[in-house]
Amino acid sequence: MTSPAMIEAGTRVVLPGTPASAGAAVGPVVRVPEPLGEPPAGPVVPDDRREVEAGRIAPAGAAVSTRMMDTAGTPGLAKEVADVLYATAMMAEDPALLEAAADAVRDHGTPAPRAVYEAAARFVAALRSAGGYMAERAGDVADIRDRIVAELLGVPAPGVPTLDGPSVLVARDLAPADTATLDPATALALVTVEGGPTSHTAILARSLGIPAVVGCPGAGTLPEGTLVRVDGTAGEVVEAAPGTAVGADLAAAGPTSVAGPVTTTDGRRIAIVANIADAKDATRAAGVGAEGVGLLRTELTFLSAATEPTEADQRAGYAATMEPLRGLPITARTLDAGADKPVPFLDVAPEVNPALGVRGQRLFDEVAGDAAERSSTIGSGSADRAGVLDRQLAALVGGAADAGVPLKVMAPMISTADEARRFVARARAAGAEQVGVMIEVPAAVLNAPELLAEVDFVSVGTNDLTQYVFAADRQSGALAAFNDPWQPAVLRLLDQLCRAAEVTGTPVGVCGEAAADPALAVVLVGLGVTSLSAAASALPAVAARVGSVDLATARRAAAAAVGSPDVASARAAVRDLLG
Amino acid sequence: MTSPAMIEAGTRVVLPGTPASAGAAVGPVVRVPEPLGEPPAGPVVPDDRREVEAGRIAPAGAAVSTRMMDTAGTPGLAKEVADVLYATAMMAEDPALLEAAADAVRDHGTPAPRAVYEAAARFVAALRSAGGYMAERAGDVADIRDRIVAELLGVPAPGVPTLDGPSVLVARDLAPADTATLDPATALALVTVEGGPTSHTAILARSLGIPAVVGCPGAGTLPEGTLVRVDGTAGEVVEAAPGTAVGADLAAAGPTSVAGPVTTTDGRRIAIVANIADAKDATRAAGVGAEGVGLLRTELTFLSAATEPTEADQRAGYAATMEPLRGLPITARTLDAGADKPVPFLDVAPEVNPALGVRGQRLFDEVAGDAAERSSTIGSGSADRAGVLDRQLAALVGGAADAGVPLKVMAPMISTADEARRFVARARAAGAEQVGVMIEVPAAVLNAPELLAEVDFVSVGTNDLTQYVFAADRQSGALAAFNDPWQPAVLRLLDQLCRAAEVTGTPVGVCGEAAADPALAVVLVGLGVTSLSAAASALPAVAARVGSVDLATARRAAAAAVGSPDVASARAAVRDLLG
Repeated sequence: MTSPAMIEAGTRVVLPGTPASAGAAVGPVVRVPEPLGEPPAGPVVPDDRREVEAGRIAPAGAAVSTRMMDTAGTPGLAKEVADVLYATAMMAEDPALLEAAADAVRDHGTPAPRAVYEAAARFVAALRSAGGYMAERAGDVADIRDRIVAELLGVPAPGVPTLDGPSVLVARDLAPADTATLDPATALALVTVEGGPTSHTAILARSLGIPAVVGCPGAGTLPEGTLVRVDGTAGEVVEAAPGTAVGADLAAAGPTSVAGPVTTTDGRRIAIVANIADAKDATRAAGVGAEGVGLLRTELTFLSAATEPTEADQRAGYAATMEPLRGLPITARTLDAGADKPVPFLDVAPEVNPALGVRGQRLFDEVAGDAAERSSTIGSGSADRAGVLDRQLAALVGGAADAGVPLKVMAPMISTADEARRFVARARAAGAEQVGVMIEVPAAVLNAPELLAEVDFVSVGTNDLTQYVFAADRQSGALAAFNDPWQPAVLRLLDQLCRAAEVTGTPVGVCGEAAADPALAVVLVGLGVTSLSAAASALPAVAARVGSVDLATARRAAAAAVGSPDVASARAAVRDLLG
Repeated sequence: MTSPAMIEAGTRVVLPGTPASAGAAVGPVVRVPEPLGEPPAGPVVPDDRREVEAGRIAPAGAAVSTRMMDTAGTPGLAKEVADVLYATAMMAEDPALLEAAADAVRDHGTPAPRAVYEAAARFVAALRSAGGYMAERAGDVADIRDRIVAELLGVPAPGVPTLDGPSVLVARDLAPADTATLDPATALALVTVEGGPTSHTAILARSLGIPAVVGCPGAGTLPEGTLVRVDGTAGEVVEAAPGTAVGADLAAAGPTSVAGPVTTTDGRRIAIVANIADAKDATRAAGVGAEGVGLLRTELTFLSAATEPTEADQRAGYAATMEPLRGLPITARTLDAGADKPVPFLDVAPEVNPALGVRGQRLFDEVAGDAAERSSTIGSGSADRAGVLDRQLAALVGGAADAGVPLKVMAPMISTADEARRFVARARAAGAEQVGVMIEVPAAVLNAPELLAEVDFVSVGTNDLTQYVFAADRQSGALAAFNDPWQPAVLRLLDQLCRAAEVTGTPVGVCGEAAADPALAVVLVGLGVTSLSAAASALPAVAARVGSVDLATARRAAAAAVGSPDVASARAAVRDLLG
């Protein structure tokens, strides 16, 4: 290893890059195959071999289709992802595509991979010229094309390979399609040779809570299987020098657990808690010493369900998820479904702007829900929507009792005090003692004086809040610069929330990606936030940072960030202040 | 006319309803035909007449298709609307649909209208079960079905008829599809017998600036051609008693022009200006005495353009639009295109949430624009996007000079001071003297201390701002209660903006639907707004109201609205205060 992008550090080799998603993880490198180039147009297949060459195409399409169908059938896969995979699998066996390619082999002697490539190009062009929805499918055809071409060439299919165990994915760059099925349980961290902090890789990694380093040229030559430590906060990848006890060596490179209870140096208690969705996450959270859970996402059992899971099944599922954290407090968010996270049995109509639609608590609220019902043009299976929420609340209360954890519940997508009041009443009726709401809609902050009076606590979802404050889709690569957790505009809104919360004495938590960044965590503490919730991998560094400052320093950091004119100034001001 | 919902008022008959969109207009009633019910399944067509009956179906489909193609070819129609109409027209000639219906006539003696109805029902069911995009097309098939059935029955096609001149549309209720091609130049006002202030009719009317009254049972029996005055502010429809000079009588029922210059009773100058998009709008604005234009929308020439209009053509077009207002100040908004208002030559990629996408100034800004370019997967025709804006700015400056109007320009979808600074520099380079930005993204208010220092003025688009503050699509019927211009959350944000504008001395205008509501206009004046821009029809009542209060009263109204916990309390508090 002699790349100029490397720095020797004792026995360790440090590959510098750009921090893209906070947190750290250790695991073996799995390389993502490079995208295929254009297959060669020659040599021309001789007449007597054309029929055989043409005959290879249909089986290659079938093989690709079969593998995609298998992936689509993966248990626990979100229905929307599975649907896309099924639809794409069908395309891989489209006779129109495969026969056009076979004809080109027979008629012109084009090699099979090239024939598939060219036939697909015509499909892609036709789809693009059709515009709209059809144009969006062009990328799927290009993906199918590359997979069939790889099959014909006998090389690994492009995209993320199936992971057999916990791994660090290393790629030149990742396309959105590569990452549809990424599971944080096996994809421990992402490293890309190219890309910047606003690339798709970075956006996705932050939303999944996976540590990531981008723009890391030294990673280009990392051999498959190398054990590395990815530090997404510092923006570096560390590999052990040959022959050293790599695991122990790498683990020593940063804090690996939360030494709770966490306080500032002058004793302000800050809860360092985890975002989880299932028992695997809970086990990881327990493993790093999380002080509880700040965000239990409860969509998993619903997203692939054709009918509503029974209350008993939900209760058992929640209990199993909470069990690894027995005795620690858990805050569960009620079902955050909607047009972008479809729950089939809720029967939600398609929406032009799903992120601005009938999602989260709006699906269950008597006012918005009734209106949604009236405007729905498709089906009427949602007559008992309100009951879905009541049964989930009861299952959460029961599951927490079974697992022996103190429970708080909170509703997503609340804008007004009226909505909060109605949710609190229903949660209390279901037996919940501590009831709060998510703060992710800007109106919720502007309505804070009335809204906070209705709840026991609030938790800020900074990712969605930022998306709405900037009217910029958080999944959009083009607009990623707006979706930066350091945006002073968002910190100013948080400041308004915390000032209102001082008046009502309401605890304010943060469970967005802002809480995963140690320096920003200090800013949040300075604003008045008392609970920081993030992916387990990010917690040790956050706890260490928060535990190293006093409240006065945190307040100075907060004032510096809130008073900065832009993201770069805010980061720089806080960096200067915290050293 | 003896409906119980009528009240005799001198010689006038007043039909009370619910105010849905502010403003007033006088015109003849055009009734929108009721939706067709299910056509009868019998009597069975005798064997010897089945071939003739079956033979009627294809020509009926062709006739419907031809008429839709004609409509799709209407000059000036937005490309997205035309595309939908073309696609729907093709469906009306779909042999699979028409032949299935003809077979049912031949095989079972089903009457042709019923046969079409049943064949379409199977199509609709298949589309709905396909889900996603296909399911969204089900409504189009139902529309086509109703048109072919109407053609076969020889009754008027459902939906809004083609308007020969200025008209007041009266319907039982209006579906979104009915209103796709509504032109405010001919559709002067909307009245529905059913529906509430959050119905599609109300949302659409407000967004088009057309006065509307909903829930008006007395309108159910208004004869076609009756001259009525629709008062969307008071929520009533007034018709003259038989035999009176209806036009003069009705016109006397409310103010019909702006008696400018408008001031509060104690002399605070408030500009009462119009929202316009073309020369017809400008003529109407001049007709009601508008003091200028607060929002000139410039998308019209671009939306249907396959290639960029030349600078000379744009300049001539803007001059023609401005000409009726010679001498009056005009504020033009630069191109507000994006995935939801596609401009073909800009080559914008489809987006999951177009309202949160690369739209407005983001398309042309060097930072967001570069990123958009990088992430675009479709085509590369947008290499000269930045030049599109520069040529538009030059054409606006030239057109205003030609028309003899003082020009201000402003950019849509600005979030940060950096974006504002870059736009101002380019607008000044193109010769614009007064340069500002729209305030419609919440971040723009939170960034106001820095942003306002970069510009000469700002104008608040309350419709989009409310949509983003509540994360609630303004086109969604289900979420219409959030999109109310009286939301205290939005008024509080406006208050923050006005406080920041006091510091920098920046004039603040409002050009959303909030400015069309006379009572709310007083609140805005009380907050510090100095320019109110709305559809011409709303201006006389707004001017009269603003001219009737002093600044202290307006400030009390503003404080009452901002301090209210919800929409209903805000309206009531201001109503009580203003009497």
